[in-house]
Amino acid sequence: MTKFDEATRAIRLDDTTYDVCLDNGYSIGGPLNGGYLLAVVLRAAVDESPHAHPVSTSAQFLRAATPGPATVRVERLKSGRTATMTRATLIQDGRPFIDTLVTTATLDGSAVPEWTGEPPVRMPDLGECVKLPDPKPESNINLNGQMELLFDPPTIGWLSGAPTGRPESRAYFRLAEEQDPDPFVLALAVDALPPVVFSAGSRGWAPTVELTWHLRALPAPGWLTLLGGGRLISDGWFDEEVEVWDSAGRLVAQSRQLARVGRG
Amino acid sequence: MTKFDEATRAIRLDDTTYDVCLDNGYSIGGPLNGGYLLAVVLRAAVDESPHAHPVSTSAQFLRAATPGPATVRVERLKSGRTATMTRATLIQDGRPFIDTLVTTATLDGSAVPEWTGEPPVRMPDLGECVKLPDPKPESNINLNGQMELLFDPPTIGWLSGAPTGRPESRAYFRLAEEQDPDPFVLALAVDALPPVVFSAGSRGWAPTVELTWHLRALPAPGWLTLLGGGRLISDGWFDEEVEVWDSAGRLVAQSRQLARVGRG
Repeated sequence: MTKFDEATRAIRLDDTTYDVCLDNGYSIGGPLNGGYLLAVVLRAAVDESPHAHPVSTSAQFLRAATPGPATVRVERLKSGRTATMTRATLIQDGRPFIDTLVTTATLDGSAVPEWTGEPPVRMPDLGECVKLPDPKPESNINLNGQMELLFDPPTIGWLSGAPTGRPESRAYFRLAEEQDPDPFVLALAVDALPPVVFSAGSRGWAPTVELTWHLRALPAPGWLTLLGGGRLISDGWFDEEVEVWDSAGRLVAQSRQLARVGRG
Repeated sequence: MTKFDEATRAIRLDDTTYDVCLDNGYSIGGPLNGGYLLAVVLRAAVDESPHAHPVSTSAQFLRAATPGPATVRVERLKSGRTATMTRATLIQDGRPFIDTLVTTATLDGSAVPEWTGEPPVRMPDLGECVKLPDPKPESNINLNGQMELLFDPPTIGWLSGAPTGRPESRAYFRLAEEQDPDPFVLALAVDALPPVVFSAGSRGWAPTVELTWHLRALPAPGWLTLLGGGRLISDGWFDEEVEVWDSAGRLVAQSRQLARVGRG
């Protein structure tokens, strides 16, 4: 069992309850990363379903969860031949932290697309991409240690005072330990980039309010490519869209989140 | 009270229950349009909230709802200064038909965007756009009578055997009766286009499994512009993205749905 599999493990207590232990390794200065938490919730939802893959996940982030024991409560809403619908809620100290609606289905790993779009932007080669500097130890940004991100350089220009002026963030992604991507890794990947608004000149904690992502295909082994952008920053709200492409050049996940602009 | 307001009315019974009457005017050969149903559910969710606007709605479509009496059950998950989170479920004959997670907040009608993207496609002028032919009466497609849609001609080429070969659907939209767009009209608008896969050569009923839409600004009076596309058709699933722009040239709503390809 890999470190990520262990950190996202959900142990079945009964028909509707799973025990989980939220891992400090995925925290960012205290709160836990949203994508990591979704991976934990999806472990329970998939375990409870007769179907194998989380094809659609919508989540409301009610409160910022912190490391430690928690439970996932699952409520099956409907199960049919093609798909199962489940409500899954992450609960800590008796209160809901994340509420989700999950659709599971069983994807065909050998499906050939009837039609596919192209990546919206061409990434530079891996060798031309760059890491973020290591965070200061006192910032307690543990998440960065769990994954490797190699960025398209202009999209981290904000680090050196040169934001591009529009919401964007793009990087190659893989786990720090050796592990092929799977749907749970994709849940982490869709929320792994720095907020796209940093590139538009904003700073500070940008809390996710809602995130929906769809699993579109089972990812091939190797690096994932995360292409993040946004359409509107207004009235304290912004959207962040991330497409995840696998090493075989297939669109494997799509996400959009609605979040608050930070005041940092 | 307009016909649309009447058809989406939710009457409060108690803290958690609203009575609604699902209107046959929004049916498509039997089942009701998903966007119309979301508008009904959102009436209840907004009424129950201290905040004024449905900024984020994620919905799972469990079963195809039909006209007649129904209830919306609301469960408030959290309320804070900025936003209220609610689960709202449409129930008919004791069974859930649509389950949603709704975030309400109060948008500032005079907000000026910090940053905004451009429409992804330029629409032809209204005068160059075309209506769909009236449906045959025996098809019972009542929905078309409630709204005016004027299409970008190539995107309905599929009607005459000339699909463009990619998922797309674009039209100007307004209600048939005189009514300025509001957030509830936008809920209808994000699901008002023919499925984008028709333009890629598919036909037949394309049931929505999940639809998430975000209200990004309060719409100005006048026509709305609906720009619909998609990124992948594979393994029986497709995504449909719709951006709604108002007559003042602002992005007012964004939606994505995951749906099944029809077998028609």
